[in-house]
Amino acid sequence: MFESTVAAARRVRQGRGTMAEGVAMPKVVDHQQRKRELVEATWRIIARRGLSGATMRQIAAEAGFANGSLKPYFPTKAELIEATYAFVFDRTNRRVAVATRGLDGMAALEAFCREVLPLDVDRLDEARVVISFWQEAAHDPRGSELNNASMAQWRHSMATWMGQAREAGDLDAAIDIPSSGDVLLNFMLGSQISAVIDSAATSPADLERQLAAQLAHLRAAG
Amino acid sequence: MFESTVAAARRVRQGRGTMAEGVAMPKVVDHQQRKRELVEATWRIIARRGLSGATMRQIAAEAGFANGSLKPYFPTKAELIEATYAFVFDRTNRRVAVATRGLDGMAALEAFCREVLPLDVDRLDEARVVISFWQEAAHDPRGSELNNASMAQWRHSMATWMGQAREAGDLDAAIDIPSSGDVLLNFMLGSQISAVIDSAATSPADLERQLAAQLAHLRAAG
Repeated sequence: MFESTVAAARRVRQGRGTMAEGVAMPKVVDHQQRKRELVEATWRIIARRGLSGATMRQIAAEAGFANGSLKPYFPTKAELIEATYAFVFDRTNRRVAVATRGLDGMAALEAFCREVLPLDVDRLDEARVVISFWQEAAHDPRGSELNNASMAQWRHSMATWMGQAREAGDLDAAIDIPSSGDVLLNFMLGSQISAVIDSAATSPADLERQLAAQLAHLRAAG
Repeated sequence: MFESTVAAARRVRQGRGTMAEGVAMPKVVDHQQRKRELVEATWRIIARRGLSGATMRQIAAEAGFANGSLKPYFPTKAELIEATYAFVFDRTNRRVAVATRGLDGMAALEAFCREVLPLDVDRLDEARVVISFWQEAAHDPRGSELNNASMAQWRHSMATWMGQAREAGDLDAAIDIPSSGDVLLNFMLGSQISAVIDSAATSPADLERQLAAQLAHLRAAG
């Protein structure tokens, strides 16, 4: 799996950068900061123009780098694109961690779904990047590994929250947790496509209604 | 919207080809047949290697054409790719028409879903092509028009079948038909992604279980 930006930042904070002597620390942090700036520029460009429109030249311009000066940070375009996809997963997961803090059961499940669904402009941009990513991951084992590790983590979280809801008597007794979790996951993946491509038929309010309808199916009656 | 292969074939059968005199008909039919062969070759190559791996040279080789002889059929790669996407939608819709013939209500809805879900090798190849298509349609108005016209047609069919199910007393009274149809549609779109990229966690049997769980939510109790 690709190194996440969070893991990279942690490694740097712990002094485990490639140049570990004290005097070199600011340089390492600066290097990580600049990688992060490039990843954010790449994310914005893929969201706006698609993957084929994201050239190294345009990414450099967007990030305020001189053309040709990206090599020390990302030797190849493939590495930069990989880091960008990892960044988007990471960004969603950090938002989920905040939104679900202190919650469990159905409340946590709903909060999670609301962070994954493209309900605002920012998450619509994430959806655009994710759609580009899927096209790559369909033919690239490194991409599918990144995707599948994230999806396994999401399935595990959803099953945990549904298990808590069952304990609390909040889940319909007839629910098969793995299948219902997968339906919800596939619904949220498909929503990224509908919200980006078929936006006139898929407003945030439409997605809110769909999520409410689906969660109502899972809840115990009464 | 792009001209579908079905519409093109009908136009030719009706003698409304570009060369409408009787003597020219076999040539027109031959031209359409060769376009169709190229579209099928393109479909196979996109499924196997992705869009970036589908070069005009490889498509020519796969279809048994001399390199450089594609121009009379598809002057640009973009036109060939568009025709290929239209072909895949068309192919699914023709299969749906066969599978739902003589059915209505919940039986028709289930038959439809089973044709759209990637439950066999052939439909997994369709899913691979559709994932490439989404990436293009996210940034191309012609692509999104093709997608949205197909999705509007699917939503209409699903609402019709659910309306019949309601008349027959087979649909849960609490169901909001448009929202539940959209949940089902987004679930089926997301399933294309999971089945292609996360195949170890998404077998045809898993998708069958997910579909059964979802249809059970829609059915009237008893």
